[in-house]
Amino acid sequence: MDAGAPRRYGAAMKSPIDFYFDFSSPYSYIANEWIDAVAARHLRPVRRHAVLLGATFAVTGLQPPVAFPVKREYVLRDFARSARLEGLPFKLPERFPMATQLAARLFWWLAETRGPEAAAAWATAVLRAAFTRGAAVDEPAVLQALAAEHGVDPAQAEAVWNGAEWKARLKRENDEAIAAGVFGAPFFVVDGEPFWGNDRRPQIERWLASGPF
Amino acid sequence: MDAGAPRRYGAAMKSPIDFYFDFSSPYSYIANEWIDAVAARHLRPVRRHAVLLGATFAVTGLQPPVAFPVKREYVLRDFARSARLEGLPFKLPERFPMATQLAARLFWWLAETRGPEAAAAWATAVLRAAFTRGAAVDEPAVLQALAAEHGVDPAQAEAVWNGAEWKARLKRENDEAIAAGVFGAPFFVVDGEPFWGNDRRPQIERWLASGPF
Repeated sequence: MDAGAPRRYGAAMKSPIDFYFDFSSPYSYIANEWIDAVAARHLRPVRRHAVLLGATFAVTGLQPPVAFPVKREYVLRDFARSARLEGLPFKLPERFPMATQLAARLFWWLAETRGPEAAAAWATAVLRAAFTRGAAVDEPAVLQALAAEHGVDPAQAEAVWNGAEWKARLKRENDEAIAAGVFGAPFFVVDGEPFWGNDRRPQIERWLASGPF
Repeated sequence: MDAGAPRRYGAAMKSPIDFYFDFSSPYSYIANEWIDAVAARHLRPVRRHAVLLGATFAVTGLQPPVAFPVKREYVLRDFARSARLEGLPFKLPERFPMATQLAARLFWWLAETRGPEAAAAWATAVLRAAFTRGAAVDEPAVLQALAAEHGVDPAQAEAVWNGAEWKARLKRENDEAIAAGVFGAPFFVVDGEPFWGNDRRPQIERWLASGPF
């Protein structure tokens, strides 16, 4: 997934799409389902960044949409409707929003030790577990079972998310995301241009097809 | 624009699309440019509602996106980009957001005394003045000049927006919008289904084409 390396039929890959997401974000789940195909069509690699929206909210003073009753009622409806528009199944976990630092630390550990594709597969597995089955991906046992399916020993998974190194790594990734202007999820940066929200797909596709507009 | 009255080639109009907007909302300006054509394609009348977002924010505890520096920087960029995606000109007024109660009271007066089409023409004129020329549509003199172009005497316009009757009418319309679940703009209700944001156009089109999904 390195920007310079992959070639398809001799065409050099262009600069990557940075895709920031939180494992507790239904719109991130939806975006995660289309971003690879859209990027591939334009010879762009996708660089995934698992972040904690809570950390960005703390810095910006923003709050999640579900923090306000009338908006919560609307977005819960819109989550499911937005998924249906893309032909995707949707189920909200019983506890929502949920804590996602364990899944995110494992994401960064996988990215570091097994490469970005292993991390991307983990991201997809966790997001789908959470939002197609309503799995409680904030629970260690649930995550450990998922990790095992990805060839990660449950004890290893636990050691990773309890490890100071991966706590620090996630903290650093959050700080870098905030410095890059990320204040919500999903958040995309293409050629330095920021796009916030699953609903910015038409703008992203336009940008990829014809450049700045 | 009455739901029962208009017929085109014998086809009965279906139930209306309620379209709530604030004259200070760039995304409302963009939505105002496509909603009539989209509605007409599906034999739907559009029922416009000028509201004050400030009043809905006061009730819900929400704040405008431009209240947060990092989000403000983003949305200012996204306003212009969203307009360009639709092929529309865009210019932000120097003072933004701006007070819109004068324009909104005149809207409701027009709706009452000259009918919904006159009010819709006024809505379009004010939104375009604000967001294609950056006109200060919070200034009485600017609004009076626009009103004159719509056959409304400037003295009459001033009497309307200073009149207790039209202040009360706008207040009532705001209350009704809040009761209907409106918490942002543009906001649409189609067959009882709420859609928030200019970016919900694909969902609205899908709903109009094939019903609930």
